[in-house]
Amino acid sequence: MESAIDKHQKCPRTLSRRVADDYQPPFPMYVARASEDLNQVVMGYFGIQYSGSEKKAAALAALRHIVADFGTADGPAHFDLTHHTDNEGYDNLIALGYWRDPSAYQRWLASPAVAGWWASDERLADGIGYFREVVAPRAEQFETLYAFTDDFPGVGAIMDDVSGEIEEHGYWGSMRDRFPISQTDWMRPNGDLQVVHGDPARGGRVVVRAHDNIALIRSGQDWRAAEGDERRLYLDEIEPTLRAGMDFLRDNGKDVGCYSNRYVQSIDLDGNLLDESYNIGHWRSLDRLERWAESHPTHLRIFVTFFRVVAGLSKLRLYHEVSVFDAQHQVYEYVNCHPQTGMMRDAAVDGR
Amino acid sequence: MESAIDKHQKCPRTLSRRVADDYQPPFPMYVARASEDLNQVVMGYFGIQYSGSEKKAAALAALRHIVADFGTADGPAHFDLTHHTDNEGYDNLIALGYWRDPSAYQRWLASPAVAGWWASDERLADGIGYFREVVAPRAEQFETLYAFTDDFPGVGAIMDDVSGEIEEHGYWGSMRDRFPISQTDWMRPNGDLQVVHGDPARGGRVVVRAHDNIALIRSGQDWRAAEGDERRLYLDEIEPTLRAGMDFLRDNGKDVGCYSNRYVQSIDLDGNLLDESYNIGHWRSLDRLERWAESHPTHLRIFVTFFRVVAGLSKLRLYHEVSVFDAQHQVYEYVNCHPQTGMMRDAAVDGR
Repeated sequence: MESAIDKHQKCPRTLSRRVADDYQPPFPMYVARASEDLNQVVMGYFGIQYSGSEKKAAALAALRHIVADFGTADGPAHFDLTHHTDNEGYDNLIALGYWRDPSAYQRWLASPAVAGWWASDERLADGIGYFREVVAPRAEQFETLYAFTDDFPGVGAIMDDVSGEIEEHGYWGSMRDRFPISQTDWMRPNGDLQVVHGDPARGGRVVVRAHDNIALIRSGQDWRAAEGDERRLYLDEIEPTLRAGMDFLRDNGKDVGCYSNRYVQSIDLDGNLLDESYNIGHWRSLDRLERWAESHPTHLRIFVTFFRVVAGLSKLRLYHEVSVFDAQHQVYEYVNCHPQTGMMRDAAVDGR
Repeated sequence: MESAIDKHQKCPRTLSRRVADDYQPPFPMYVARASEDLNQVVMGYFGIQYSGSEKKAAALAALRHIVADFGTADGPAHFDLTHHTDNEGYDNLIALGYWRDPSAYQRWLASPAVAGWWASDERLADGIGYFREVVAPRAEQFETLYAFTDDFPGVGAIMDDVSGEIEEHGYWGSMRDRFPISQTDWMRPNGDLQVVHGDPARGGRVVVRAHDNIALIRSGQDWRAAEGDERRLYLDEIEPTLRAGMDFLRDNGKDVGCYSNRYVQSIDLDGNLLDESYNIGHWRSLDRLERWAESHPTHLRIFVTFFRVVAGLSKLRLYHEVSVFDAQHQVYEYVNCHPQTGMMRDAAVDGR
């Protein structure tokens, strides 16, 4: 048994863990490990938004364009593709790329092809919407959790190793306790979301300025290899409850501190759905995410089911990654997206 | 808003609260306050165990005897009476008395009438069982929580005042955070329950030696004044789930660290049931109680229902009190009780 906080990330605590040193979790879970040279990662959510099936071809072409750009110098070491229907009934495609090195990301972003494509006035005339939500947690600002030990999705894919069984899981508050920064920092939010360029109501280009310690959770499930009872368990028992919870957050998130919630399903380059999904949730703070997770009936039901079945899981892969960010390490940009998209929904517009 | 930990009980923390200073609970709750001269209280559970309706008259007579003794010098300032059917199908009556001053309790206990009655060989020949489970938390070793502000049951009845709205509730871990001692102490258990006199399997007199930081929860509900929808809410929705959870602990407690669990209903001196009940749960540690409460489906269901309805409660009174104890401030004595009674069930017997 080892701590989720890696040896080189340990520091003298000013804040204590929720549980004592002799706490024993009820079943094994694992985290991804990175070597000491990992200081900060970049998670780039590149989105395409469209309405109407006649736009699908253009949207998929844009997705393939982004993926092609991913393949150029300094592109992400890992990415995946998703589809979801959003709170306004629009279709959205996202290419999510992970960089292990923020300078590589900056070079990639500034490359003429990538920068030029985004800045082009053609983006305003394509008849579809675009967004870039790019966040860069420092190494002490994210945590992971896996019920398996190989072939990690998400940020784990750009990390270097896997832990042994970790101590900090199986109790409310363990997510926080897995963050290295939780040893000394409450991760409190400050300020509010603010539109600093454009006007969401008028479309066009909009930029939202973030605040410190917005929390982002990617919480996923991969049932590609699950068969028989395990597949039925996921599809009949876990998935409907999960969907109910995620729909609640999509439609009622504002009241509980959830800025944006997208329950996405993996797709291939042609837009075909795969047996893999995840949720992308942006929260005002880790605290708000904790409160919702530990008190909302749908999430408690998911949690109870997970506790009941986790020891018997074989092919069903369940995991999450959670990050917080400094204000300056977040970029939220939108082009011709409807005003309920992403961080725009809850952002203040000056003078209104 | 104020802390559940009273001003005179605040001390420099070595352990942090689970939530930051700006945490806001979702609805109001209150705690009982005591003046600074309260150093330690005594909670005396005086039980009578019998099997078969032909023993009921003798059991009630014994209960009335205990209550009469309560009325003598240095008796408890507050008490109540209960009935429950235990894990072996026996009927049990309990007179639960609260003392604000341990010396008064010691004088009462040592008074010839009280001491003589308990020590008499007649107790061994009465054809019914007796037990005394007496615990004495220091002022920093217990916490309370009420959804109402007047006429407190239990330990609140011997305290002096009521708080304003408190901060530490509405999240998992708030129970611990309400303990003054949690500022500096994990309240860890040490050692195990040990039979130090007699043999449970043979009946007769048995004494069980406790260990530090056994946790005791009294969790109650009083629906005497509840009418209409509120009464139906309790009886149809809350009570069946509560009972399922309490039955689980009564029958499967050993696996989760619950030494004893008694879901009792209040009675009058004639044994008539009243519209008031509470659970008496002894746990190996506060930690084990936390783990069960925050992960077991029945308790999560109770919790979700409570969250949903608490703001609308009018006459239904819900509360709890939780204590931990030093080993030497606990006495567990049994006379002719079956070996699954109270602390005997999980206590080690030398040589076996």
